[in-house]
Amino acid sequence: MGRTSDAKERILAAAHELVEVRGYSALGVAEICKAAGVPKGSFYYFFESKEALALAVIAEEWAGQRKGWAEALEGPGAPLAKLRKLFEGTAAAQRQSQATCGTVSGCLFGNLSLELSNRTEPIRLALQEVFATQARMVQAVVEDAVARGDALVADPAEAARAVVAQLEGQVLLAKLYNDTSHLDAMWTNCLALVGAGVAEAAAAMPD
Amino acid sequence: MGRTSDAKERILAAAHELVEVRGYSALGVAEICKAAGVPKGSFYYFFESKEALALAVIAEEWAGQRKGWAEALEGPGAPLAKLRKLFEGTAAAQRQSQATCGTVSGCLFGNLSLELSNRTEPIRLALQEVFATQARMVQAVVEDAVARGDALVADPAEAARAVVAQLEGQVLLAKLYNDTSHLDAMWTNCLALVGAGVAEAAAAMPD
Repeated sequence: MGRTSDAKERILAAAHELVEVRGYSALGVAEICKAAGVPKGSFYYFFESKEALALAVIAEEWAGQRKGWAEALEGPGAPLAKLRKLFEGTAAAQRQSQATCGTVSGCLFGNLSLELSNRTEPIRLALQEVFATQARMVQAVVEDAVARGDALVADPAEAARAVVAQLEGQVLLAKLYNDTSHLDAMWTNCLALVGAGVAEAAAAMPD
Repeated sequence: MGRTSDAKERILAAAHELVEVRGYSALGVAEICKAAGVPKGSFYYFFESKEALALAVIAEEWAGQRKGWAEALEGPGAPLAKLRKLFEGTAAAQRQSQATCGTVSGCLFGNLSLELSNRTEPIRLALQEVFATQARMVQAVVEDAVARGDALVADPAEAARAVVAQLEGQVLLAKLYNDTSHLDAMWTNCLALVGAGVAEAAAAMPD
């Protein structure tokens, strides 16, 4: 059984890497199996379909990324410092992908959202859940920041959504230009989106 | 020759619609020709490759959208009112696509950026040019707003990039959730990104 479970992991690892670089539609099961070094018959033993494999790739990617999000946002420290950690971590991960693969690979969830969300409902739902969790995690931190007077927004849920959208949009541009130099600006943009500058200006005003 | 040029237009129109709904990789030339009602031989008479067709689709889409961008951003009026027109126009276009197709189709440029930018250099360059033009158009308006004291940003080019990133990110989420109800919040986010709230707060401060 040792070899069997190893084959499943190898298929998942190969698919993860290939989906990251090439997307989903352009990939065939035969190619995934070749990269994994397993016979094509093994594939359907472990995965019902290519879609089932994509769902496993999404789950694996989020299990890994979620640790980083929790480490940045759910540890001790001031709320804005936590958000900063998230943005710096995201920029660092994209720089790492550029150094390793030669090109910025972007966000797997964003890539698959645009490629697939209108084509398969199970993948749409899985990706919705990822982004909803991200937005909830950011929202909790924005609410803390507002409670401490470090941020000023009318609707923390909308502000959190805007922060996630800004991350996705900037990573999209970084991928398109294969250029990570603008990702540092995300932090300034995040401050603006949660009204941190406004809170500062308001605090500087005389009573 | 009348029939010949009609065939080219039909291929382009069919490809435009199919790429919008399904992306690029999942499409075959045979399917495009079938949708256009032309024999497969015609395709290679007009387009050297599927990639050449994608470039024509991008050019056609931007020629149409650019008119809307210019109408919003380059007419008369206060700079912030112009930006508002752009954001409202974007939200309206996504609502229209949802009403027509049943699902939010998202931004063709964003979709193709994530699907293809790491796979074909000619498409990457074409999309870079579209987003660079969008950012330049927004930047000119942000500079006007700063000059009038309606906005407050250290770097208008970075702020313009953030505005474009916010548009792309929010449209990505609207597509993923097939829900256009959050697109109205883009305008508030845009104000925050160009420091319009900060400028207001600063203006309210006593000398």
